[in-house]
Amino acid sequence: MQLPSKVKLVDVGPRDGLQNEKGAVPAEVKIGLVHRLQDAGLTEIEVTSFVSPKWVPQMADAVEVMAGIQRKPGVRYSVLTPNMKGFEAALPSKPDEIVVFGAASEAFSQKNINCSIDESIERFRPVVEAARKHGITVRGAISCAVGCPYEGEVAPERVGHVARLMKDIGVQHIGVADTIGVGTPRKVQAAMEAALKHYDIDAISGHFHDTYGQALGNTLASLEMGIWQYDTSSAGLGGCPYAKGATGNVATEDVVYMLHGMGIQTGIDLDKLVDAGKYISDFLQRKPNSRASTAILNKRAG
Amino acid sequence: MQLPSKVKLVDVGPRDGLQNEKGAVPAEVKIGLVHRLQDAGLTEIEVTSFVSPKWVPQMADAVEVMAGIQRKPGVRYSVLTPNMKGFEAALPSKPDEIVVFGAASEAFSQKNINCSIDESIERFRPVVEAARKHGITVRGAISCAVGCPYEGEVAPERVGHVARLMKDIGVQHIGVADTIGVGTPRKVQAAMEAALKHYDIDAISGHFHDTYGQALGNTLASLEMGIWQYDTSSAGLGGCPYAKGATGNVATEDVVYMLHGMGIQTGIDLDKLVDAGKYISDFLQRKPNSRASTAILNKRAG
Repeated sequence: MQLPSKVKLVDVGPRDGLQNEKGAVPAEVKIGLVHRLQDAGLTEIEVTSFVSPKWVPQMADAVEVMAGIQRKPGVRYSVLTPNMKGFEAALPSKPDEIVVFGAASEAFSQKNINCSIDESIERFRPVVEAARKHGITVRGAISCAVGCPYEGEVAPERVGHVARLMKDIGVQHIGVADTIGVGTPRKVQAAMEAALKHYDIDAISGHFHDTYGQALGNTLASLEMGIWQYDTSSAGLGGCPYAKGATGNVATEDVVYMLHGMGIQTGIDLDKLVDAGKYISDFLQRKPNSRASTAILNKRAG
Repeated sequence: MQLPSKVKLVDVGPRDGLQNEKGAVPAEVKIGLVHRLQDAGLTEIEVTSFVSPKWVPQMADAVEVMAGIQRKPGVRYSVLTPNMKGFEAALPSKPDEIVVFGAASEAFSQKNINCSIDESIERFRPVVEAARKHGITVRGAISCAVGCPYEGEVAPERVGHVARLMKDIGVQHIGVADTIGVGTPRKVQAAMEAALKHYDIDAISGHFHDTYGQALGNTLASLEMGIWQYDTSSAGLGGCPYAKGATGNVATEDVVYMLHGMGIQTGIDLDKLVDAGKYISDFLQRKPNSRASTAILNKRAG
């Protein structure tokens, strides 16, 4: 196995995770989570989303959350800005990175963001331009990169197509996302190969959901290709709104456990990370959705 | 990736799974599970254990369960026989295969079977001899092959040592078992490499627990070495008696989902397998401990 010696994890729990939670989480608790994640050693955190509170009430406190964070040197804070209105709202909060959300599936694009893939790229164009003018990095998420709840399997060429369009408008980094968690190692590798035709390996991350329990296998398969950046969610926060009761993002704890066990550095303190996940899970009145966290907490309890 | 095109799964749910369940399961329900597993396409099932009912009351109905199974041609039925007394009790039930249980950790051997590793091998010697005289295949399980609840990490050499001892007494097949689920891909590969020094690749299987969520990654890492036989447990039945609340064996459903997604044949019908897991989970009054099963059942419910 040819593997990276270091991996960077972006914890998307505060945004991708909490956005998909039913219960309301006060800004103060979100800020508490971000603080615990950076204390645990995370160097990038996807904090919030600047979207219409009418559509996503969970993120209505975006300004408040960004203002409340005591920033730690060396940590990057990213936010979602799906359009110019969102970008303009986000700008005073000084994000280090913004994220635009595209899809590899036409049907998902239509249902999720109400426009075609090509239209979504046109909508992102001015956002990317403005962000880069302000020195803000732009990441493009490619959702449904292996499967779609409406179309079924998604061909790697579709991922390549969106990657090329994102490259054209100046997106600097792309995330290949198995939004509904249906991917398995070979399919994920095919999607990554398609992305690699347009982006350098240092500009690609993997984003896996554990819906069918496949996320760690898919992470390993991507590591073997040299992919060294992944989105994960503390305590496995989040679900998939398109698959009832489905497990959401892979838990940061489970990925860190695997990486450390393989001798791959992350800079993350697993015990502190488990505490961060327990903090938000306690608030949500449930157990962390992470097997590593469950095992570690059980062991602590004796 | 160089991968096997076919994989054989041994469902250990009725034995390894139910042995670790607290509630009593009637023989009739165990038989019902075995029937559903063979209908789903499993070609080997670890049915029960011939042990003292004083120590393992869950398996006190071993004779009744074996007698109640309507055997399907092409399916192999294996049972645990830790000593001659167990073997003699098992013989009239005509198992196709018997399993003897060793450990790679001295402390685990002492605590789990009350003797040293070397003593356990001497205890198995007459069992292996008798089984082979009767044309019954002998499988040797090597528990704690990567980690031990008492000793911590277990060196690959310890696995090699036990494999050699098992080879010496005539054990035909060995299972490299991460009993407490602490393994990660590289460590598992090191344990497999140690086993491969003494056994042919066709005589080795992997047995992973999902305690820390690592089982599918470890399965993928083993597949990449060409290992094509695995023990799995329908509905993720079982726990680990040494780690409170810990997840047990990897769910057969999750492994099948990964293998089929990778184009690897198993001969198993995933939908029927999900039904089998739901059958026993319904009896135990809980949800299947399998992410693939959860996702599939949610999808069916709409």
